[in-house]
Amino acid sequence: MTVRFAILGAGRIGQVHAKAVASTPQATLVAIADPVSAAAQSVSDAYGCDIRTIDAISQSADVDAVVICTPTDTHADLIEQFARAGKAVFCEKPVDLDLDRVRDCIKVVAAQKATLMVGFQRRFDPDFMALKKAIDDGAIGDVEMVTLTSRDPGAPPADYIKRSGGIFRDMTIHDFDVARWLLGEEVETVQAAASVLTDPAIKALGDYDSVNVILTTASGKQCTINNTRRATYGYDQRIEVHGSLGSVSAENHRESRIEIANGAGYTRPPLLNFFMSRYTAAYANEIAAFVAAIANGTPTPTTGFDGLKALELADAAIKSVETGQVIKLS
Amino acid sequence: MTVRFAILGAGRIGQVHAKAVASTPQATLVAIADPVSAAAQSVSDAYGCDIRTIDAISQSADVDAVVICTPTDTHADLIEQFARAGKAVFCEKPVDLDLDRVRDCIKVVAAQKATLMVGFQRRFDPDFMALKKAIDDGAIGDVEMVTLTSRDPGAPPADYIKRSGGIFRDMTIHDFDVARWLLGEEVETVQAAASVLTDPAIKALGDYDSVNVILTTASGKQCTINNTRRATYGYDQRIEVHGSLGSVSAENHRESRIEIANGAGYTRPPLLNFFMSRYTAAYANEIAAFVAAIANGTPTPTTGFDGLKALELADAAIKSVETGQVIKLS
Amino acid sequence: MTVRFAILGAGRIGQVHAKAVASTPQATLVAIADPVSAAAQSVSDAYGCDIRTIDAISQSADVDAVVICTPTDTHADLIEQFARAGKAVFCEKPVDLDLDRVRDCIKVVAAQKATLMVGFQRRFDPDFMALKKAIDDGAIGDVEMVTLTSRDPGAPPADYIKRSGGIFRDMTIHDFDVARWLLGEEVETVQAAASVLTDPAIKALGDYDSVNVILTTASGKQCTINNTRRATYGYDQRIEVHGSLGSVSAENHRESRIEIANGAGYTRPPLLNFFMSRYTAAYANEIAAFVAAIANGTPTPTTGFDGLKALELADAAIKSVETGQVIKLS
Amino acid sequence: MTVRFAILGAGRIGQVHAKAVASTPQATLVAIADPVSAAAQSVSDAYGCDIRTIDAISQSADVDAVVICTPTDTHADLIEQFARAGKAVFCEKPVDLDLDRVRDCIKVVAAQKATLMVGFQRRFDPDFMALKKAIDDGAIGDVEMVTLTSRDPGAPPADYIKRSGGIFRDMTIHDFDVARWLLGEEVETVQAAASVLTDPAIKALGDYDSVNVILTTASGKQCTINNTRRATYGYDQRIEVHGSLGSVSAENHRESRIEIANGAGYTRPPLLNFFMSRYTAAYANEIAAFVAAIANGTPTPTTGFDGLKALELADAAIKSVETGQVIKLS
Repeated sequence: MTVRFAILGAGRIGQVHAKAVASTPQATLVAIADPVSAAAQSVSDAYGCDIRTIDAISQSADVDAVVICTPTDTHADLIEQFARAGKAVFCEKPVDLDLDRVRDCIKVVAAQKATLMVGFQRRFDPDFMALKKAIDDGAIGDVEMVTLTSRDPGAPPADYIKRSGGIFRDMTIHDFDVARWLLGEEVETVQAAASVLTDPAIKALGDYDSVNVILTTASGKQCTINNTRRATYGYDQRIEVHGSLGSVSAENHRESRIEIANGAGYTRPPLLNFFMSRYTAAYANEIAAFVAAIANGTPTPTTGFDGLKALELADAAIKSVETGQVIKLS
Repeated sequence: MTVRFAILGAGRIGQVHAKAVASTPQATLVAIADPVSAAAQSVSDAYGCDIRTIDAISQSADVDAVVICTPTDTHADLIEQFARAGKAVFCEKPVDLDLDRVRDCIKVVAAQKATLMVGFQRRFDPDFMALKKAIDDGAIGDVEMVTLTSRDPGAPPADYIKRSGGIFRDMTIHDFDVARWLLGEEVETVQAAASVLTDPAIKALGDYDSVNVILTTASGKQCTINNTRRATYGYDQRIEVHGSLGSVSAENHRESRIEIANGAGYTRPPLLNFFMSRYTAAYANEIAAFVAAIANGTPTPTTGFDGLKALELADAAIKSVETGQVIKLS
Repeated sequence: MTVRFAILGAGRIGQVHAKAVASTPQATLVAIADPVSAAAQSVSDAYGCDIRTIDAISQSADVDAVVICTPTDTHADLIEQFARAGKAVFCEKPVDLDLDRVRDCIKVVAAQKATLMVGFQRRFDPDFMALKKAIDDGAIGDVEMVTLTSRDPGAPPADYIKRSGGIFRDMTIHDFDVARWLLGEEVETVQAAASVLTDPAIKALGDYDSVNVILTTASGKQCTINNTRRATYGYDQRIEVHGSLGSVSAENHRESRIEIANGAGYTRPPLLNFFMSRYTAAYANEIAAFVAAIANGTPTPTTGFDGLKALELADAAIKSVETGQVIKLS
Repeated sequence: MTVRFAILGAGRIGQVHAKAVASTPQATLVAIADPVSAAAQSVSDAYGCDIRTIDAISQSADVDAVVICTPTDTHADLIEQFARAGKAVFCEKPVDLDLDRVRDCIKVVAAQKATLMVGFQRRFDPDFMALKKAIDDGAIGDVEMVTLTSRDPGAPPADYIKRSGGIFRDMTIHDFDVARWLLGEEVETVQAAASVLTDPAIKALGDYDSVNVILTTASGKQCTINNTRRATYGYDQRIEVHGSLGSVSAENHRESRIEIANGAGYTRPPLLNFFMSRYTAAYANEIAAFVAAIANGTPTPTTGFDGLKALELADAAIKSVETGQVIKLS
């Protein structure tokens, strides 16, 4: 079976997914939609697919699945539209910035018995998959403490920050998902600290740039998350999981594997500087997993529920910072 | 000038300090005191020093300085006794497990204008000193976030835990001191999570074995501390400091620098398994710094105040765990 | 301009190059040739290209360039045939196992003013390119000593070894090319040691499995090459270049970037186990460089001359082992 | 039993050995000899030992063992003198620069049934001992190829070079000894390349600064040695041993274990810059091993024979460079 795809949105991440679809053996790219016709044309040229409107796509019999890469505030509506149209839906995170809207959307998906996968690409990074496999294989025994370090090379533009829902919903949300994935147990309490250290403009926007979070589960497992919007040495993405029998960690990706030694010491290149080059393989694997789930009729590895839970943790972290309290999730 | 020393207590740590004194050029070991005469004799034999009682030492004209290595509950009394006797005092942490007692003790020291150095040896580890120097030299710009990982190979005996004041006062206290040292600013808020994951016996003793702490300062700097009583791969002691211009970290100490490659992969030896072998150089440097301060009439690098502040952070962490609140230090 | 390709030979390496051609934007795969029709069909199915005979391809007006992936003993004849047919030729190393035959072949290519690139893919590995760039950028000053370590996971089948020309012409030849590339100066003397340590069957075939080589240049630069046919930890490919101002090295590629710590130590996965997965990016870059040279009318980065020089070094190494002498190249 | 020592020569290496003797529990330093009285006095002051002439020491009943740290051209005579005087002798390498003189000297030692240990300290480095132990424990199976990299931070003064016997007898000789130790089999052939790349003054002195050597044994094991007199990044001392089941390597010693990350990359400090700080532990272990052999009446771990064999390899390497031939050892 070949899964026939349409991509909604031909921006940066839309192009990434278009390439992923085009290079997945069991998938084919049928159509692209974007209000900016040059963007749509560019994808059409590169992969030989049609240009259609979103509404046309939702009625296209030759489309089995869509990848939603449109602005965040359209996600929930589009998920519902395409779930109702009988298409399998892959949606970039987040489903919505509002928890109630997410809950409603998931209900629609469930009512339609539709397929919804939310884009948490880190779960599909080959190194993180190897780390998870080591845990699942028993290499470190029972998971006890997870340590996540995610640092961006630089803050996004003010405009982006304004619409982002804040650092916890925009950036930490990936770590919340990874935490749930690795802890293997739902989070019960959330506490956080947040401040602005890199740029006062971020404070003016009502957001933070430097945060630390502690999560705990019912059985006492703990996870810490460290985020900053500015790491001069590149895009820093580390995981360490400590267990009863040992620890497992995943190293960063550098620009190359060379090392130069001289009187100043031994220097290796900085890290890859952009999430798209860092997670190239993850984006491809993610689409391949979506395709495989559709083709095999199996559940997708991430769902709307995962999007919901990660957002709940983000909201709890914000509440913790605002109240100075440890927040219990119900 | 040669500083003439007596050591109070000939146990494990007393022997470490005896050796440090004996190998410090400007210091000489005059006397050892220990109620267990075999222990005192052993130190006397090794370094050719007298065996005296504690009271005799406090009246010995040929002793300039003492190192207090007796049980914790005697520390504050001995500090006061020797401060009054005009001796310079080096005391192993903690001064006392009770904050008020520590405050009183420090007042006595201050009233006597006595010298008191509290044993936070990590500040004297060559690698951590190199890390601190890199920060002071401006290599990472302004300090923003400190990440401390301290994991013991295994929990101490139940008897020790009972008298220890709990993991925060016994183990995390070293990290609290390192945090203050590296943040370069006093801590304003403390929040923590704690659980028992390695051994239910620790729960039965009313203690924890796995904790995470977040500290913040007035300017918004943050520090996280991760502790566990059980790391199968050895004594894990890591520091990472993130700043406006970069990050600096210090690596662990392994049993040796070899690496074996075979079909199972590339394996380096586990970490040194014991704090005394890990911090051998730190213990020697610490005594050398104490001697230099006395000889030069300069302040000691750590004082009773440092002991007090670290204990305040430990008490705040405990309160945070108990109340589910972020604790503000006054 | 789009360069229209045919691949001669649909075996393992032919498939690698077919994929590389298909994914190079400026190239298109027009035809495949292979006497085994199932092999040809498989490439045709995958990339939608014609199946043609070699002779048909040499007369195809719609083919600009060919990639020769046929058995070694056909290389020189095919290079000549396609050079005469006016096609640009990419040929897997070696041109031939016989030096005189290589010289004749190169003469034909020169007489036809044809384009010939010989497949030394290591020059196109991203890490090795970064290393070379660091040298060219002056990071280590003048190159003084090059150290090459190339170890295969396991020996090829006896049949392959028989026809390979021996380890120096089959395996070390890649290092000879890298040596020339990095030394930036032609090699003047060659000396070598060779023995059989991994499998007596290799001795029975008249070959070696473990060799070390020293090369020197006129100005006194030196290069050592270490090869073995058996490395239990994977496909080991390291370069280190020492210069007047420092050294630069390139690290191996592991199966993943995780590390597991437990009582046995810290273990990272073994190396990628196969030259094709290790050099995936190199093979793609190599074809891209060939395409760019054709499209831009610039010289190819490697030529028949490079194939010749590497083979001369291989022959000299063999002579050194046989005679116990340092061999001077004329 | 306490072994009573005298040190002959109070120079740099004499002071290292004096300290090693003083800190070895089973040894005591009785006397120091040096024609420069200030040097002798300094050692005497530091360790409270007598100052005596060499002749007086050879007749001192209270001296069991001597450490010869005098100029190279006095070594053989002093070894003979003290062997005849019934003292155990530890002599810094080399016994002599002339092979025949070494052979004669060893005969005298043998005739006297005297104890002679030659100072090849690398065998006593804790990391290299761990590497050797891994081999002996079977971690890599049968040893096949040894790779030794020894690079000095800078060349010694011209005066030193003149009297040194050349780089092979002065610097590579340590690697020759390590090669024999690790190969576990005597070397049968030697071939080498040598040039001057760092400083023409070295050429004027008739010496080389950059050399590579290949050694082979009867069973076909191979060893390469890479030396240069100039490594800008410090004192580079690496060993890698490849065997039938895997490889083992030993890493260098850096100034500290910190790493700084910024836009320029990840930088670790350069290597320790001086052989004495690099091999501090090795020098202490070496003397402890000598003392243990005397105290236990067991053979010393290195002997005059080891000094002889290493010198034979050095002479063969020189001959190989001069003749362009592989040199067979008889």
